Amino acid sequence: MTELEKSMESMITVFHRYANEGGNKSTLSKKELKKLIENELPNFLKSQKSPDTLDRILKDLDQNKDDELDFEEFAPLIIGLSVACEKHYALLHEKAKK
Amino acid sequence: MTELEKSMESMITVFHRYANEGGNKSTLSKKELKKLIENELPNFLKSQKSPDTLDRILKDLDQNKDDELDFEEFAPLIIGLSVACEKHYALLHEKAKK
Repeated sequence: MTELEKSMESMITVFHRYANEGGNKSTLSKKELKKLIENELPNFLKSQKSPDTLDRILKDLDQNKDDELDFEEFAPLIIGLSVACEKHYALLHEKAKK
Repeated sequence: MTELEKSMESMITVFHRYANEGGNKSTLSKKELKKLIENELPNFLKSQKSPDTLDRILKDLDQNKDDELDFEEFAPLIIGLSVACEKHYALLHEKAKK
């Protein structure tokens, strides 16, 4: 498996590790999303000081308004974070060149 | 770094490895995209028999119509593939349970 394929597999595996915990086994409840973000995206959480961040994330991603996230609803969070990271790196790179 | 953070970093690193090759160093040209897909997503390519697949992918992703993909334009390809993979796994899992 290539590096890119492994990253895709990791995203799916991590999602299911948390989704599988209780209730609907194929979706993330708010509690499961909280645990995933706390454990797997600790640096992201540190930059979010507002106490209602989790509620906002869930509301933004939950397309069908069932208060649960399936993988298709969860994926945009990872992409959004990756795009933000990449822009940040690009900016640092630009500055370093000057 | 957590597993999920490492996956995000890998996606960014792989993108830049190919984007960096020639022309604009921060975007993928059609040639660079072709090389990335051939080397990093060989299983995806195998399932795409049509010769104009690459042109269609580029056209679909290229939001600003400059015939190049920046990371933000490229990311939906990886997410789309991950979502498709995850649906496939979920289906296999459902069948295995029956």
